[in-house]
Amino acid sequence: MSFADRLDAAVMDAGHPLVLGIDPHFDLLPDEFGRARAADASKEERASVVESFCKQLVEIASGRVAAVKPQAAFFEILGAHGLRAFENTVAHAHQHGLLVIGDVKRGDVPSTARAYAQAYLQGEEPSVCDAITVNPYLGADANQPFVDACKQSGRGLFVLVRTSNPESALFQEHGEPPMSEVVAAAVSAWGDGLVGECGFSSIGAVVGATHPAELARLRAKMPRTPLLLPGVGAQGATAADCKVAFPDSKHPWRGALINSSRGIAFAWKRPEHANRSWKDAAHKSLDTTVAELREALELTSG
Amino acid sequence: MSFADRLDAAVMDAGHPLVLGIDPHFDLLPDEFGRARAADASKEERASVVESFCKQLVEIASGRVAAVKPQAAFFEILGAHGLRAFENTVAHAHQHGLLVIGDVKRGDVPSTARAYAQAYLQGEEPSVCDAITVNPYLGADANQPFVDACKQSGRGLFVLVRTSNPESALFQEHGEPPMSEVVAAAVSAWGDGLVGECGFSSIGAVVGATHPAELARLRAKMPRTPLLLPGVGAQGATAADCKVAFPDSKHPWRGALINSSRGIAFAWKRPEHANRSWKDAAHKSLDTTVAELREALELTSG
Repeated sequence: MSFADRLDAAVMDAGHPLVLGIDPHFDLLPDEFGRARAADASKEERASVVESFCKQLVEIASGRVAAVKPQAAFFEILGAHGLRAFENTVAHAHQHGLLVIGDVKRGDVPSTARAYAQAYLQGEEPSVCDAITVNPYLGADANQPFVDACKQSGRGLFVLVRTSNPESALFQEHGEPPMSEVVAAAVSAWGDGLVGECGFSSIGAVVGATHPAELARLRAKMPRTPLLLPGVGAQGATAADCKVAFPDSKHPWRGALINSSRGIAFAWKRPEHANRSWKDAAHKSLDTTVAELREALELTSG
Repeated sequence: MSFADRLDAAVMDAGHPLVLGIDPHFDLLPDEFGRARAADASKEERASVVESFCKQLVEIASGRVAAVKPQAAFFEILGAHGLRAFENTVAHAHQHGLLVIGDVKRGDVPSTARAYAQAYLQGEEPSVCDAITVNPYLGADANQPFVDACKQSGRGLFVLVRTSNPESALFQEHGEPPMSEVVAAAVSAWGDGLVGECGFSSIGAVVGATHPAELARLRAKMPRTPLLLPGVGAQGATAADCKVAFPDSKHPWRGALINSSRGIAFAWKRPEHANRSWKDAAHKSLDTTVAELREALELTSG
């Protein structure tokens, strides 16, 4: 079964397009995980604390979202021990029935891209992801090994097209047509051979919800591409900003994923959750975020 | 001491600009390391074999080149065990007096880029690299955490500007001026505050030697940027193609690095080395490559 169809089924099951980002910023972890940032703790000890936090977050997400998106960078700080924590988090998510989008943003020349594809998209180990994020800058031949791996293994990609950070226009909007549109056209073409029964491809794209005008433009260039939308919440975009990414008026949460990381995992830091444990705050915030999303997507649809 | 000055001193010491790439393609490893590709071997066993090969390659390079450039992808195939082998290879290179350019091609939104910078450019562990490669697609704010880390820790970057793969023009030459020139101007500006006593910056750029016309154009846009030139050898570029990257006629090997990976590590596979051990073939090939490089760079200089 293709990634496209597995993702679509999981989103339809969940009844909303929210993905939980797992970004264990050491400084934002609740006090009970304080050893993750302790200068006198070994990397092994710190990684084991990070892993424990991430696994609990997976358990909060289980049965309530289609997918989780662990961010590799926060694990790589702790080197090999950190990568073990990443692997165990991925495996834990799979055991809990969640799809895993590895946010690794890899990309390299073809022979090296093949190695990255093998690392994250191939093989049967539980630590291999269902999809990863990749950076397109190196070109079509450099992306092809990732596409080939997806075809062979039933996995997927989310290619960076327009990122959510404030200065992303510098290169991504360069030229006429803007770079992001050229990349979008390429991503759409790369995905042509991998369209599932659901009508979407296994080759997706990352488009920041922080740029609603570009989001509409880019969705038009990539009609069958599942979009992964970061930037809602902490970075300032709203659920209503995302509406243009969802092309199916009958199923207003189909065809795109909205990521929330800090807003849920670190909800405990916000005043309205002052009397809750970090887990209760995360649960509550997940409920609220899903309800707001559904309302925003349904209200504005046909 | 800045990365720029450490690199310059190491190159002047070596008397040539060759960097040895450490890309342990499992399929190309000599038979004595065959367990690296064995389907019945554990990742731990395979990683230990890869580590042993890489350490021996480091020993071949020691005292003969300024720097080695391990490619993270080939280690990441083996997960946490592979990352341990990467770390041990980096540490071994440092123990052998070599600078290490971690070829990781990372890049992400600012808060995540900070985590990658911390992982690979900060801290005092032996496994932290002297410089890493980064992907610029996300923009200036996303690159800034890497520049800040270099300033704080005396380390360096090589930002992808124009990569050596055949289809790199698709995005990198898009627009007018071409994207690669826009990125080159940004890289040059990012490096302004990090120019060492040698006159070059700690913020370098990757420009494929496979595009000699662009190389000259891009060198002109980045006069104080150390260039890392892949593509010589297996990918078809020659030492003479690289000449335009070296701006100092008095020291014709100053200001750029020429990478060779397979040509040296896997020299044993070429017919002319049929009667040599893999190590003897690597030694011999290193000698020949350095002699050819020096000749090409000196011959054509003032």
